[in-house]
Amino acid sequence: MSNGKYESGNRKGNEIFIGKKPLMTYVTATLVQLANEPTVVIKARGKSITRAVDVAQIIVKRMDSLGYRVASVKLGSDLLSSEEGEKPRNVSTIDVSISRSK
Amino acid sequence: MSNGKYESGNRKGNEIFIGKKPLMTYVTATLVQLANEPTVVIKARGKSITRAVDVAQIIVKRMDSLGYRVASVKLGSDLLSSEEGEKPRNVSTIDVSISRSK
Repeated sequence: MSNGKYESGNRKGNEIFIGKKPLMTYVTATLVQLANEPTVVIKARGKSITRAVDVAQIIVKRMDSLGYRVASVKLGSDLLSSEEGEKPRNVSTIDVSISRSK
Repeated sequence: MSNGKYESGNRKGNEIFIGKKPLMTYVTATLVQLANEPTVVIKARGKSITRAVDVAQIIVKRMDSLGYRVASVKLGSDLLSSEEGEKPRNVSTIDVSISRSK
């Protein structure tokens, strides 16, 4: 059931998928997208969820002069079968929407 | 600046702090709290954020017959100085509010 859409660095429309690259890679990618789109959704699953929250916090708090805010946070889960013959397991996901404050 | 409030297993009023214990410990603790309170807030910081989302998902999805839902998700950051003389660093936090669907 893995569709690969949460793989590292993938980007589709206004979505940024968090993977294993350095944190600032995703911060930069998100800021670039925010220059073109009113809202960007930072997506992650499993252990990358913490990194997604870090990326959102860096953009909203540390770069607060840019005037972005967390518009919404959505939690979910995906059915993932990582290995052949392995039982599919649930992986938690997060979608953090970032948009301009005003 | 660490106030220890995100330490493992602490509980205060309607808050559950996620630490390093087995996942189901927190699921059970949250369900016990939900029997007494209309809303329970699952709190975590740093790497435990993923576990907080897992706990919320288990309660909302896998135990959906209980009729709980994620009422709100709040992201934030804490200033944390873990070691003497170490530079304080920012740690991301998450607060997931769980309440009854109807």
